Amino acid sequence: MSTKQVFMTSEVSTLIGKYTETRKETMNLVRPLEIEDFVIQSHEDVSPPKWHLAHTTWFFEQMILTAYKREYEVFSKNYHRLFNSYYESLGTPFPKHQRGLLSRPTVQEIINYRNHVDRAIVEMLTTEEILPDKIKELMIIGINHEQQHQELLVTDIKYNYSIHPLEYPYLQEETQERPALTLPPIKWHSFEEGISEIGTNNEDFSFDNERPVHKHWQHAFSIASRPVSNKEFMEFIEDRGYERPELWLAEGWDLVQTNDWKAPLYWRKEEGIWRTYTVRGVESVNPSEPVTHISYFEADAYARWAGYRLPTEQEWEWAFRDNDYEGNFLESGLLHPSSFGEKESGKEFGDVWEWTRSPYTQYPRSSPLEGALGEYNAKFMSNKMVLRGGSCATPASHIRLTYRNFFPPEKRWQFSGFRLAKDGQ
Amino acid sequence: MSTKQVFMTSEVSTLIGKYTETRKETMNLVRPLEIEDFVIQSHEDVSPPKWHLAHTTWFFEQMILTAYKREYEVFSKNYHRLFNSYYESLGTPFPKHQRGLLSRPTVQEIINYRNHVDRAIVEMLTTEEILPDKIKELMIIGINHEQQHQELLVTDIKYNYSIHPLEYPYLQEETQERPALTLPPIKWHSFEEGISEIGTNNEDFSFDNERPVHKHWQHAFSIASRPVSNKEFMEFIEDRGYERPELWLAEGWDLVQTNDWKAPLYWRKEEGIWRTYTVRGVESVNPSEPVTHISYFEADAYARWAGYRLPTEQEWEWAFRDNDYEGNFLESGLLHPSSFGEKESGKEFGDVWEWTRSPYTQYPRSSPLEGALGEYNAKFMSNKMVLRGGSCATPASHIRLTYRNFFPPEKRWQFSGFRLAKDGQ
Amino acid sequence: MSTKQVFMTSEVSTLIGKYTETRKETMNLVRPLEIEDFVIQSHEDVSPPKWHLAHTTWFFEQMILTAYKREYEVFSKNYHRLFNSYYESLGTPFPKHQRGLLSRPTVQEIINYRNHVDRAIVEMLTTEEILPDKIKELMIIGINHEQQHQELLVTDIKYNYSIHPLEYPYLQEETQERPALTLPPIKWHSFEEGISEIGTNNEDFSFDNERPVHKHWQHAFSIASRPVSNKEFMEFIEDRGYERPELWLAEGWDLVQTNDWKAPLYWRKEEGIWRTYTVRGVESVNPSEPVTHISYFEADAYARWAGYRLPTEQEWEWAFRDNDYEGNFLESGLLHPSSFGEKESGKEFGDVWEWTRSPYTQYPRSSPLEGALGEYNAKFMSNKMVLRGGSCATPASHIRLTYRNFFPPEKRWQFSGFRLAKDGQ
Amino acid sequence: MSTKQVFMTSEVSTLIGKYTETRKETMNLVRPLEIEDFVIQSHEDVSPPKWHLAHTTWFFEQMILTAYKREYEVFSKNYHRLFNSYYESLGTPFPKHQRGLLSRPTVQEIINYRNHVDRAIVEMLTTEEILPDKIKELMIIGINHEQQHQELLVTDIKYNYSIHPLEYPYLQEETQERPALTLPPIKWHSFEEGISEIGTNNEDFSFDNERPVHKHWQHAFSIASRPVSNKEFMEFIEDRGYERPELWLAEGWDLVQTNDWKAPLYWRKEEGIWRTYTVRGVESVNPSEPVTHISYFEADAYARWAGYRLPTEQEWEWAFRDNDYEGNFLESGLLHPSSFGEKESGKEFGDVWEWTRSPYTQYPRSSPLEGALGEYNAKFMSNKMVLRGGSCATPASHIRLTYRNFFPPEKRWQFSGFRLAKDGQ
Repeated sequence: MSTKQVFMTSEVSTLIGKYTETRKETMNLVRPLEIEDFVIQSHEDVSPPKWHLAHTTWFFEQMILTAYKREYEVFSKNYHRLFNSYYESLGTPFPKHQRGLLSRPTVQEIINYRNHVDRAIVEMLTTEEILPDKIKELMIIGINHEQQHQELLVTDIKYNYSIHPLEYPYLQEETQERPALTLPPIKWHSFEEGISEIGTNNEDFSFDNERPVHKHWQHAFSIASRPVSNKEFMEFIEDRGYERPELWLAEGWDLVQTNDWKAPLYWRKEEGIWRTYTVRGVESVNPSEPVTHISYFEADAYARWAGYRLPTEQEWEWAFRDNDYEGNFLESGLLHPSSFGEKESGKEFGDVWEWTRSPYTQYPRSSPLEGALGEYNAKFMSNKMVLRGGSCATPASHIRLTYRNFFPPEKRWQFSGFRLAKDGQ
Repeated sequence: MSTKQVFMTSEVSTLIGKYTETRKETMNLVRPLEIEDFVIQSHEDVSPPKWHLAHTTWFFEQMILTAYKREYEVFSKNYHRLFNSYYESLGTPFPKHQRGLLSRPTVQEIINYRNHVDRAIVEMLTTEEILPDKIKELMIIGINHEQQHQELLVTDIKYNYSIHPLEYPYLQEETQERPALTLPPIKWHSFEEGISEIGTNNEDFSFDNERPVHKHWQHAFSIASRPVSNKEFMEFIEDRGYERPELWLAEGWDLVQTNDWKAPLYWRKEEGIWRTYTVRGVESVNPSEPVTHISYFEADAYARWAGYRLPTEQEWEWAFRDNDYEGNFLESGLLHPSSFGEKESGKEFGDVWEWTRSPYTQYPRSSPLEGALGEYNAKFMSNKMVLRGGSCATPASHIRLTYRNFFPPEKRWQFSGFRLAKDGQ
Repeated sequence: MSTKQVFMTSEVSTLIGKYTETRKETMNLVRPLEIEDFVIQSHEDVSPPKWHLAHTTWFFEQMILTAYKREYEVFSKNYHRLFNSYYESLGTPFPKHQRGLLSRPTVQEIINYRNHVDRAIVEMLTTEEILPDKIKELMIIGINHEQQHQELLVTDIKYNYSIHPLEYPYLQEETQERPALTLPPIKWHSFEEGISEIGTNNEDFSFDNERPVHKHWQHAFSIASRPVSNKEFMEFIEDRGYERPELWLAEGWDLVQTNDWKAPLYWRKEEGIWRTYTVRGVESVNPSEPVTHISYFEADAYARWAGYRLPTEQEWEWAFRDNDYEGNFLESGLLHPSSFGEKESGKEFGDVWEWTRSPYTQYPRSSPLEGALGEYNAKFMSNKMVLRGGSCATPASHIRLTYRNFFPPEKRWQFSGFRLAKDGQ
Repeated sequence: MSTKQVFMTSEVSTLIGKYTETRKETMNLVRPLEIEDFVIQSHEDVSPPKWHLAHTTWFFEQMILTAYKREYEVFSKNYHRLFNSYYESLGTPFPKHQRGLLSRPTVQEIINYRNHVDRAIVEMLTTEEILPDKIKELMIIGINHEQQHQELLVTDIKYNYSIHPLEYPYLQEETQERPALTLPPIKWHSFEEGISEIGTNNEDFSFDNERPVHKHWQHAFSIASRPVSNKEFMEFIEDRGYERPELWLAEGWDLVQTNDWKAPLYWRKEEGIWRTYTVRGVESVNPSEPVTHISYFEADAYARWAGYRLPTEQEWEWAFRDNDYEGNFLESGLLHPSSFGEKESGKEFGDVWEWTRSPYTQYPRSSPLEGALGEYNAKFMSNKMVLRGGSCATPASHIRLTYRNFFPPEKRWQFSGFRLAKDGQ
């Protein structure tokens, strides 16, 4: 390592720290896995854990090292083909639904790959006299990209484990049944009509889909003080919510019937009790936690049943613009929603991503990034719904007020929940 | 018929006229069909022509006669089960994709059914001393509903005929190759930013999805003076538009590959010439007509290729708020887009539905209708895109400025085209 | 018509009679149909009735008129493409599963086609001074081919009607509940081991798959005097026959689970009573009739349950080599199995095709026909099982002792039943 | 271990030796695998290697230890559910197509399982004073069962590796291009008609499907001295064999078109040269080896093209009844067909399984085993064709003259080839 290192600006030093920490956190998440667990792809929505490890590494290699590092040699020229996720402009990606058929490279080879790239990145950062802004920017994107895959690692591993008939836990720690606390009643926060400002201009870091700040006519609305709880959702089920077509969007009703949905993903009724698969194995559903692993259609049907609606993403952003972002995120290690009312003050964030009623579209006057990164977000802008907030599997440092998560409305394997809203004050 | 008829208010008389005319127009559309043609369902998106004849009749019978006419006896108690389209609150509908398996009732029985209901409706309207507003309203909805099915009849029949290896024409008239006229250059109409008003408050007739009038912050934009033409779309194809993933939304690119899309629906290249199936049989593609039978994804890819974007539905509505609605609609009998430049003044409307970049969602402060009619529009608000304008298969009296048509973004069997827009003035 | 007619040999006269009668019988079978009923294809195993009418006509036109009649002009050059069933050597056939999408030609046009070909055939037969043997042979094949389609017409129409939610009857005659007669006990006919002779050498007419006569070592066996009855099959069901995997071949058990088979096709239990769709509408299952509409797998499972086995096709043929072929065939007009014991003598034939345990293979020293007719039978010799006998939908004049019918073992829409056998005398 | 061991009869001692050797050979086959390779299931016809290791062990545990060993405790009560292959009478098996989703138990746990069962088996064999015949018989069946899975291990691993885009070799040894030797011309061995005896009466060991010896009328036939070679098969391809429907059975032709078959599995043409994936990686196709990895349909089409036919299984058995069974089997370690003409005398056996034209059926007077073992063979007797001989992946000690292998006619992942036959002497 170069002696230039001592002259590193604190900015670069911070960047290296953040990079190293992020890469380490990823490896922490897979520590409980056996080698065999890294290979499995139990659904075409999920990827094998080892694929995540390799793909995030490929991202740094392809976008930064290959592009900018003098005399960099790729770890293996075959990896480009295998670990490109969807960047069509970089060559035909390996078919997503067949990732579980790739026994090679082995987990050890992928760890070697990670180490190889880590060394090269750190070397590059420490030896460049002046680090171009473009590289700094790509480093930040790469770190954020890896954080997104940390969340996917958790939700994909959970799904992989859940389908095994023996329902192995992902985390081996002793289960502590978390207490069912008193559920704080929903309060309504009201907002007047007027011109709001939505989005960000990227002073710190943001994705292209959050930019730019733009005006938006905001109609008067009210939004609930907390997400809907398991207790409330069980009332919906008991009131035959899954059996009444008038509560559902047409596509949602089709899904209910085709998939025989009767409850959130992972729930099953055993001797009259709702139980659910969690990262620590099967537990009773805790009534005082936010409901999670539901599709947009279930959130929407619940809201219709309850006489409310989901908020738009603009309402959500406007309502929370002054809030602190504290809550139960990836770093807590819980990897499960926490009970409402655990803290005296109540809490308003985290635990679950919150479905909004807003389809995922481009902001006014936005323009996508150039080159391969232009594929990062914008090309998914069809048939997706926006989720806001952040979940117990999201790194806290990854999210912010203007963050826009998006998924197809029928997906349930993310930690997705929702909050109610209504017209007027 | 009662002697009260002479005292009919002119409002009721107009209603009867409109009803009778609409019902007759439907039968006009199927006049060229052989009995066998009424039975075919060539794709699960289309319905057999005889199903349309029966379903529109069932709508009047179920919503008005059964609900409000004293001592009305349904024509056949089995029809409710067969001809309910999707009103889950009225009982389980017959599966859509199997409508082509119903040989019975015969076409003649369905015509008898139509006559039976027509007589009962006219009798009801003429004999009620005071016609309740509710019935008037339902009549208007029923007429508009039947007009929607007139458009579907045209597009479904076209599709049914097109898949026959012998490519029979729907309209037997002699084909007149329409002249390829000079294509007027696109002009840009610009609009300043500010608060616009979108939607309607239903003074005359409107669907629930168009209501209410609401404020909207409009960013400055410009919109093209006419839709994109076949000539222009051919340039996109020649520039390998269907082969370049960077131009496409991810789902669109999947569709291109899965379905091997290389051109709009109905187009095929024969000896270097693009030809297309039309309602009059196979013709050469006329370069000076608006391109049609394309998906949202193709419209979006073209716009990206051309360096523009699609308009939002609010932009579209705002831009055309003062226009006359003249153009080539169902009544012209052409059932095909007309050439640009056929009229001196140019023309700005009709011919094709125009894809917007707006997903189909509820307007602020809207509320769906109550009862079965609540299922009319709102329950389709997921994974659909809004189209504005009206096509050569749309009855002119059916549409208006605020009309919101909507289809899944991948569908191509409607007369769908698009118009370009851009940010700023 | 030529005056030569009077000099017709009686052989040709017989041929014309047979031809005319067969063609007329086909039209008799479709007499109860509405035009709409001719168009429907409710399953990819069945064909629309109008397709059968056209295809059998095409067979005569293609094999005889086009090949041998001087100056014959085909009725429509497009029909060859549409109505070729599977003769790959004659050009790519229209996809079988899409036959129900062909609204044209109309039923009337197909009837005109039939008349056109009938006239040309009769003219050819009556005007040729010496009719070549090849043409006589093709006429006989064409007549037998049409008889096969008569059987398919009945079974396809039955299936088409059965899936309609209103369960229209095919035959409108008043239903006479056929009496449930005493079931004659099964007797066993025993045969010693030795060399048997199987097949035919075609002195009269036979298909290529029945030829030639060949020796076969026959092990001693016994065969039941009548097929298994509905009463007996109900006992199998009541003994949980459809729930016990050990009774089933592996593929059969998969089918039971995938399709949720619980009884023969068309059976359903209503208020504790087995009822079944018949060509005359829904009736109670008559216990004294042979069970029918079952797959090979159900026949095989029943036999295993009962402690017996199915006969081989050689055993069947050897056992019945001296029997008269009397029984309930198409000509009776019943189009449904008759009760055992209706005749004093009992009866041993007809009513249902009998599954054997013999896969459909070539006989030793056989050679398939040359040219397109070589595709008639031999190319289906994989994954089919042989059925022997003849059913209530088979023309009596079509079958004979050595006749080999064959279907995939999972099919149930034919009138298929079975008879038990066992080893030894 | 008990001191009784010294008194072991030599029969038991031989049994233990055979058991131990077989179990060891299985582990030898997976020695080249990385842990990740054990998990993969690349097609629903194949199983993950670790599944084979566990399933063969379960077979000994379930059939012998659980049934007969005093106080035996199963290694894990969950394994019964996971590693039962298809014995429905022993409980619902885990779905075959999802075996690749089972990350647990780990490979190490499965090896522990194998060791646990091996110890218990050896202990049981050595401590029983008198070993019941039933147990001896089950041991022999278990050993033969494991040998069948050795063959499947090879063919499944080959398939798993082949679909990886990097085409890793299974065996890491240096590739030695095997020489293309002169192809010996086919000679015809002729046999007269008469009564033959087929099958076995199980004096040594045989499967139920080979029993009993029975008479069969054998027509005169001739059979080729060696299987068809790659050179000959390439001539078929060059003569457009895959493009001519008249050469194919109807189901075969459908498969050719649906799957775009143009050559045997694993073949691809690169710069005009046929190359193929082998267990040592991609090599040029050696013209002097027997063709392999073909379906029954391809064998049948070739034979028709060549003017011959495939032999029946009886002809095959009769023809080879006096041959020594020498050849290229699993033990050679080649795991690939060897060249014709490598030995001076030519050779007539091994290398590839040979498709016969005989569907897989029960022999006359046979009776399946009782209990779960009754499911071993007989329940697959539908839609399968018999293969005779043995392949380069078959243990030599596993096969014998009367051995009947069987697969669905469309499968190609076994080492399957064929030999020609013809009628008459």
